[in-house]
Amino acid sequence: MDALNHQSSRDTELLLQGGYAVQTPLQQFLEACHEEFAVNQSGNLADYIPELARVDPSGFGIAIATIDGHVYEVGDSRVPFTIQSVSKAFVFALALELLGEDRVEAAIGVEPSGEAFNSIRLTSDNKPFNPMVNAGAIACSGLIYRVEGKNAFERIRQSLCAFAGRDLDVDESVFESERATGNRNRAIAWLLHNYAVVENHVDDVLDAYFRQCAVLVTARDLAVMAGTLANRGINPITGKQVIKPHVVARVLSVMTSSGMYDYAGEWIYRVGIPAKSGVGGGIVAALPAQIGLGTYSPRLDSHGNSVRGLEVCKAISSRFDLHVLNRNADVRTCVMSDYDISSVSSRRSRQPHEQQILEDRHDDVRVLELVGALNFAAIDYITRRLAGTQSKASLLVLDFRRVPDLTMAGSRLLASTIKTLGGLGITVILSGVEATSNLISTVVSLTGDDRKPRHFLLLDDAIEWAEDQIIYRFGGFSVVKETSHLKEQALLADLTEAEIEAITSLATARHYKPGQQIVKAGEIANSVFFLQSGMVSIKLPSGVRLASLGPGKEFGEMAMIERTRSADVWADTDVQCLELPIDALTGHGALYPAVSLRILKNLSAVIARRLIQANAKIDVLSAY
Amino acid sequence: MDALNHQSSRDTELLLQGGYAVQTPLQQFLEACHEEFAVNQSGNLADYIPELARVDPSGFGIAIATIDGHVYEVGDSRVPFTIQSVSKAFVFALALELLGEDRVEAAIGVEPSGEAFNSIRLTSDNKPFNPMVNAGAIACSGLIYRVEGKNAFERIRQSLCAFAGRDLDVDESVFESERATGNRNRAIAWLLHNYAVVENHVDDVLDAYFRQCAVLVTARDLAVMAGTLANRGINPITGKQVIKPHVVARVLSVMTSSGMYDYAGEWIYRVGIPAKSGVGGGIVAALPAQIGLGTYSPRLDSHGNSVRGLEVCKAISSRFDLHVLNRNADVRTCVMSDYDISSVSSRRSRQPHEQQILEDRHDDVRVLELVGALNFAAIDYITRRLAGTQSKASLLVLDFRRVPDLTMAGSRLLASTIKTLGGLGITVILSGVEATSNLISTVVSLTGDDRKPRHFLLLDDAIEWAEDQIIYRFGGFSVVKETSHLKEQALLADLTEAEIEAITSLATARHYKPGQQIVKAGEIANSVFFLQSGMVSIKLPSGVRLASLGPGKEFGEMAMIERTRSADVWADTDVQCLELPIDALTGHGALYPAVSLRILKNLSAVIARRLIQANAKIDVLSAY
Repeated sequence: MDALNHQSSRDTELLLQGGYAVQTPLQQFLEACHEEFAVNQSGNLADYIPELARVDPSGFGIAIATIDGHVYEVGDSRVPFTIQSVSKAFVFALALELLGEDRVEAAIGVEPSGEAFNSIRLTSDNKPFNPMVNAGAIACSGLIYRVEGKNAFERIRQSLCAFAGRDLDVDESVFESERATGNRNRAIAWLLHNYAVVENHVDDVLDAYFRQCAVLVTARDLAVMAGTLANRGINPITGKQVIKPHVVARVLSVMTSSGMYDYAGEWIYRVGIPAKSGVGGGIVAALPAQIGLGTYSPRLDSHGNSVRGLEVCKAISSRFDLHVLNRNADVRTCVMSDYDISSVSSRRSRQPHEQQILEDRHDDVRVLELVGALNFAAIDYITRRLAGTQSKASLLVLDFRRVPDLTMAGSRLLASTIKTLGGLGITVILSGVEATSNLISTVVSLTGDDRKPRHFLLLDDAIEWAEDQIIYRFGGFSVVKETSHLKEQALLADLTEAEIEAITSLATARHYKPGQQIVKAGEIANSVFFLQSGMVSIKLPSGVRLASLGPGKEFGEMAMIERTRSADVWADTDVQCLELPIDALTGHGALYPAVSLRILKNLSAVIARRLIQANAKIDVLSAY
Repeated sequence: MDALNHQSSRDTELLLQGGYAVQTPLQQFLEACHEEFAVNQSGNLADYIPELARVDPSGFGIAIATIDGHVYEVGDSRVPFTIQSVSKAFVFALALELLGEDRVEAAIGVEPSGEAFNSIRLTSDNKPFNPMVNAGAIACSGLIYRVEGKNAFERIRQSLCAFAGRDLDVDESVFESERATGNRNRAIAWLLHNYAVVENHVDDVLDAYFRQCAVLVTARDLAVMAGTLANRGINPITGKQVIKPHVVARVLSVMTSSGMYDYAGEWIYRVGIPAKSGVGGGIVAALPAQIGLGTYSPRLDSHGNSVRGLEVCKAISSRFDLHVLNRNADVRTCVMSDYDISSVSSRRSRQPHEQQILEDRHDDVRVLELVGALNFAAIDYITRRLAGTQSKASLLVLDFRRVPDLTMAGSRLLASTIKTLGGLGITVILSGVEATSNLISTVVSLTGDDRKPRHFLLLDDAIEWAEDQIIYRFGGFSVVKETSHLKEQALLADLTEAEIEAITSLATARHYKPGQQIVKAGEIANSVFFLQSGMVSIKLPSGVRLASLGPGKEFGEMAMIERTRSADVWADTDVQCLELPIDALTGHGALYPAVSLRILKNLSAVIARRLIQANAKIDVLSAY
């Protein structure tokens, strides 16, 4: 917590670019805010217990946690203070999580009270107005006590720690002082007991509540806690799911309608960021899917809100239009590309007659590559796009590798479309998804395990599988020849039988077992291979597959123009092939130049074809 | 409005796919909702004027407008009814737009009143509580009257039409009846006049208000109007900006806190979609960046809200988790790719020494391709990514062609980073942006016209310009040779002087003027060109540039393996080149096979190099 420590944290913002340090505009803005508002010395320390009146009134820290896990910090962002009423939002979340909505909502309302936070007034049906006033917060502690008993406070502390992403302590002297003087809260607790909102053990419940208010946090902690709410319950630093998304929306709702005491309408109108303040000087504010903000400055206004904290909230909201109801989006960008296999095919090379089937039937396989976190509107757009084009595709690949998040509701919407299409005989294949994803489990629950859609981690594998179906359906596999004659090799096209025989006599027959390596990247390239039976895969040393080849294909042919092998070749099955040494070919070429010319021409044509395919793929990938 | 018309609209949902009709899941869900809630006959028609009590109580329509301009419709979605209090939200928007926030907010508050919509009670400083109660709405009409005078109602009607995207009429008998019996509203107006909230012409203001309430709309209209609010003020059907984004957030704020009468806390907690109802039976609900919902069913509950309309709102929200505070996002997907020019270079071919400079300095040019509507959090992520890597790039291309929307705040954040980087000598180049974009004007206003960043419509042009800077900085252009000898041609590499001379003797010197076409796609390919001076561009017949070439490059070389030209070639400058007929080359090859073999080998190598580049580009584009 010393100055040095602080400085080093700030330095993570200052990163070298061309030898200079650059600050991001948000860091610059927060520092300017800190400088501007530090001069404001209005407001007073809370003084209902001596401990709170003893803090340094000039303390002022600001922190912002982004949903991708970065934390901006300015000023006293690591000075500890007691969390006080800021805890109410998070303990309400814990109560919802532990007891379920029905039990919590039966005990506590969700309407603004229109009164001070420590009012003892209850609703007409004897419930606290909402969980953000003391009565509601004590009721929350009581609910948690019902489940956890004596462990209630420790359970609450652990939850606050999970929100903050670090271990949090209690200020024992603040706790003792609050317990000794908290007569009004004691009165509220007994009134709640009278109406059976707090069932039993009133003193223990009060102790848990007083302790919860005395937990020590920093502005940085509050930013991460708010960031967890902004990030659908996942702590953006630790990556842990602290509470469920549907609980988050409920917590943010009561923060919106009742978080900032009296002026709910003004707060949503002017700031528009769900927030909660505490008399310890802290404020949390969470903007869903964007940022979590934590501020610390202990001088309070007449409502008990931190004066400078409010200024920071207002400044950030107005400077960057950060109102929760101010959202921009364009659903159409969620489809990154939409193509059939005429422009993008799998990396598996096909036999000529297989290739012919795929060319004739190219619009039987359609691929949609999706991008971004998909919400309801984006998924609805995708379902309309699928319903809305007169696609002939009987196989539909949906690629999710660029989709970091898909809501449960979105999964349901998509699963329903997959089921509808399935009923029409359209096979939907998912790629870039884990078997354990929301989408897979939702589809399974809608359609049954036996109709679970095919799914692949790699798009290329999904396209290959779809191509296989087309070849199979149109009789391709039934005419597959297990072996190939050299005259079927593209490299030897247009040569006479005699010429091919002459070439064959220069080559050596090779046999490889499944899994055996045939060619190694980096070795001298001194021969060309003609695959006669079996399958091989061309791979980078990293293991990425560049192509899979079957009978009738050549490999290692770049040896005719390059001196070194650029990729590995592995036998996938039993492989029979002919290996033709480049030297022998060159010697032969000297005697029979027309043959050599033909082969080189064929080589150019083979590479040119690959180039045309590659350019088509680039056009598809760049077009969107 | 007949059944046939209705049916044809529904049919746009039913699109052929594989010969079958597919409904999207949302359409299915809305039809199920309609069926389920149609049986609910609770509630009563408004009867304070006879006209409202005369409508068909069983009428029930649902419509949803998506932000990409699709409208879902079920049931009586085109049955007209009077808009009543639903108009308040839109007239408040108009008042903010016409008079500015300060004048409107000085006259009308933004707090929930906690009372009935027709309460005459004002705040302690004698303002209506908010624009969603009658007093506030009459004050809005009064404000508009201050600016528009007798034209006030027509201005209001035009604004409602712009929201709905079609011309709207008034139900004159409802208007007359409301005017004849609206004594309570008359009292409110005179009270407002007493406090100078309504300045003058009280009867005219009241007439405008009564007329506004009698405008005829359908559920479909309400969906489009709500869709306009959800779409940042742009009507998703007409594409017109009806109100500014910052006005939208304010309107949605008061709808959230005061739109559904008494239960603001419950509404945001349980439904979480800003909404407004009217006693004519309509409800609008707008979920920012997702959907606009309009419902019609004239039976009202005791608060004056449409019974079935409320059920639809609740069902949609709960079924699809459509709470405004329930948002998912991952800012990281906004950067689609991030690379330097070692993997993706411009389509302009370079001289060998230029190419060498670009290879040595490949990390001097960095390209970020961005995707999606960029909000504050996404832009902040981009600025951190720019600050946060130890990039050596002195030229930075930011590509926006997949960015449909950038908020003004986002523009400011980015402009500030561009300025900071500029101060360090880093040149930022924008592509995929119009000169009139927010971003350009914001950057100019921050940095001055003279430091306006370079911007290009095409990414390729931006990369080419950046490459030019690198070549220029490292002395490349000073050594550019205006003309090239054939021995520098890649196709003729490794030939002896004598062999080259022999080839030259077979070729014909050609000269072309700027803009002249040299090769035409589709023609017979019977010659190869060697460019000696000037520049040519290879283009598709569509005009898309495939490559630009300078001295020392060959073109039309595919004639050696293909019979037809696949692209056009145009002279960009004065061009001198040699044209070598394929026939002559073949004849020569028969005599000097070693030369032909060498040339074909070179051709394979040239194409292979292009393939390697294309594959590198595919890897970059597919990786993200």
